[in-house]
Amino acid sequence: MEPSQPVDIAEAIGSLPQILQALAFRLLKKNEAIEVYEYLDPIVQQTLLDRLRSGEVLEIVEKMSPDDRVQLFDELPAKVVRKFLSALSPGERKVTAELLGYQPETAGRLMTTEFIDLKEMQTAEEALSLIRKRAPFTETIYSLYVTDKERHLTGILSLRDLVTADPQMQIGEVMTREVVNTTTDTNQEEVARAIQRYDFLALPVVDKENRLVGIVTVDDLIDVIEQEATRDIYAAGAVQAGDEDDYFQSGLFTIARRRIVWLLILVLANGITTKVIAMNDQILSEVVILAAFIPLLIGTGGNVGAQSSTVVIRGLSTQKIKSLGALKAISKEAITGALLGILMLIVVIPFAWWQGEGLLIGLAVGISLLSITTLAATAGAMLPLLFDRMGLDPALMSSPFITTATDIAGVFIYLNTAAWLVNNYRF
Amino acid sequence: MEPSQPVDIAEAIGSLPQILQALAFRLLKKNEAIEVYEYLDPIVQQTLLDRLRSGEVLEIVEKMSPDDRVQLFDELPAKVVRKFLSALSPGERKVTAELLGYQPETAGRLMTTEFIDLKEMQTAEEALSLIRKRAPFTETIYSLYVTDKERHLTGILSLRDLVTADPQMQIGEVMTREVVNTTTDTNQEEVARAIQRYDFLALPVVDKENRLVGIVTVDDLIDVIEQEATRDIYAAGAVQAGDEDDYFQSGLFTIARRRIVWLLILVLANGITTKVIAMNDQILSEVVILAAFIPLLIGTGGNVGAQSSTVVIRGLSTQKIKSLGALKAISKEAITGALLGILMLIVVIPFAWWQGEGLLIGLAVGISLLSITTLAATAGAMLPLLFDRMGLDPALMSSPFITTATDIAGVFIYLNTAAWLVNNYRF
Repeated sequence: MEPSQPVDIAEAIGSLPQILQALAFRLLKKNEAIEVYEYLDPIVQQTLLDRLRSGEVLEIVEKMSPDDRVQLFDELPAKVVRKFLSALSPGERKVTAELLGYQPETAGRLMTTEFIDLKEMQTAEEALSLIRKRAPFTETIYSLYVTDKERHLTGILSLRDLVTADPQMQIGEVMTREVVNTTTDTNQEEVARAIQRYDFLALPVVDKENRLVGIVTVDDLIDVIEQEATRDIYAAGAVQAGDEDDYFQSGLFTIARRRIVWLLILVLANGITTKVIAMNDQILSEVVILAAFIPLLIGTGGNVGAQSSTVVIRGLSTQKIKSLGALKAISKEAITGALLGILMLIVVIPFAWWQGEGLLIGLAVGISLLSITTLAATAGAMLPLLFDRMGLDPALMSSPFITTATDIAGVFIYLNTAAWLVNNYRF
Repeated sequence: MEPSQPVDIAEAIGSLPQILQALAFRLLKKNEAIEVYEYLDPIVQQTLLDRLRSGEVLEIVEKMSPDDRVQLFDELPAKVVRKFLSALSPGERKVTAELLGYQPETAGRLMTTEFIDLKEMQTAEEALSLIRKRAPFTETIYSLYVTDKERHLTGILSLRDLVTADPQMQIGEVMTREVVNTTTDTNQEEVARAIQRYDFLALPVVDKENRLVGIVTVDDLIDVIEQEATRDIYAAGAVQAGDEDDYFQSGLFTIARRRIVWLLILVLANGITTKVIAMNDQILSEVVILAAFIPLLIGTGGNVGAQSSTVVIRGLSTQKIKSLGALKAISKEAITGALLGILMLIVVIPFAWWQGEGLLIGLAVGISLLSITTLAATAGAMLPLLFDRMGLDPALMSSPFITTATDIAGVFIYLNTAAWLVNNYRF
């Protein structure tokens, strides 16, 4: 079947050999070409920039909607962007430069300036005929905005409200004055949460003087939600997220750079575990078999801690933890950790007794396991919440970090418990 | 400020003491009440069911849109659902029973049956006046569907196409025949991907005979994307996800149940690590300090493996790994693992030399570290891809599993390398 949707065509072109990409692209109708271009991989976009005549490219860039153009510019070298900017028509240049002026990952950077604004005194009929005229040049005609003379946002209405209203009614009577809006410097994640919470198709963006300057639409926000989820998932796996979710297109050294920092921090932390064991080598040289249970104990502690930090970090991210409160969440996790420890004792004590050839070993492993799981669950819940309270990213307290912290405490508890048991109840 | 959006009102009511919730809810206007009810927490919904007169409740349930009603019924006890179903008007009962008949988490279960279907022979003007009439009873009027006499989907158009079209033009000329649709039994994640890919506001759902039976809208799909991300994140933390993302409202035993299964599997796997160490206790009793590096080695291997499985599982989930291919992804990760290992050697060998009081220990730790990181990265990439190829959920091969598998291989490599070095170059 021939691809008909712009994104499918873009994918088909992207999968062609480089020399054919420009040829295939030229076969598209002009309007189609603009839509398809927006969906192309950044690499293919750049290939086309190099291979098409500059007039052809400029026409596409000129006709892109401002938010998509800004997204493209974000990925191009600064030199190319400057060239494009100077070649754009004055109106488009002004809008684009304005959007590029906002911080990355804010509503200002994501928004489009192409929206429909109405006036309170217009009738529904007048408004509809205005919309008909402006529809080809705006991103959405379903969310409509009402502004006063100073461009202050005074109300919103949907196209649905408009088509069902009496044609002679004034916009001021149809619109609702209770507007949920956002500001240009609001973080993209917060904007995404608002769209999701209110089931909106678009959210108006105002500047510091409450003037309507743009709108962000739901399709852009879905990508933000996915991008933020990828970040959380990467953080949970101790991988630093890049600017874009382009891991599989990054070079080897970019990838290594995004992973080595966390690994080195964790290696240093693991060095402390080594230190703790080395300081307790007396008991290990007396009872060598004790060493065999170290991975089991710290591994289990790490797993319990990872579970707790996972649910708490996700809860903070989706804001579902709010209903419970920090203190309650921590104590609940602590109790869960103890409960899970007790459940595992049923398997672990007999195993340690048999493998360690003695009840004392079984007891040492069992007591340590229970303390470690309780501690791990408590730390796994507490540290992300603490970081969040301190204004830091709770995701930094993710599984690998909690696991390593648990290791240190775990071997300390285990070797000291074992030493105490062995010294007092020598077998 | 007084809350004006339904979701805000719902939250305000939810935060009231139970005895006031019904009172506050009664103060709402009828139309508002229906909207607010849909946003209430399941617990508050049930409280209201108990406290309001059954006539009041029934009126709300009768007027809810079918997909929201099905979502509510999913959370109520079967007995209550049966009572409601029999009390609904015949039309609503039929639709609701139909939707409840589809498998959970499919397009059929998510869709609404309230959409606007037009005929090819209608003029744009006729269609617009039809839409005006039906707008109050449909979920969206922005995506419009065209069907033939047998209810087969023959085309789609947007309200934007319609209002900008010549009023005398026929729908058949305005609509596009290239329709992207989905079927009732398609998994919700796939539906969400399609909406995201094509930037649609809604996707039509057809049955096996290609008849249009419903539509899914973007607002429901955003929740699906978030729910699926939560699942992936939970899987990465070895937490079993529940039917709903209600971790913080679950009881202690539900939580323990969702976590103990994975923990027990991992404890058993860790038992193998214990076994491997116990089998090599000869070398440990000769050189006790070797035990001190076990957590560092397996911890680092686990972290590298966790990174690899994290990026691969996420890549499979967002389908971004497709562009690279499985074999290339695995070999890239393997090389990355080796590279990261080499980078860490710079820190680890001197540390082990000094702490282990000998070059031989430094070498044993260094060689093992390099083998373990390479192996961990390879396994971390390969196992999720293998699971995916076998039609299993790649998320099962998440960090905790990879970490534990790495532990077993890690101690084996380390203790045998150390034994070989010590026996051949005894110091």
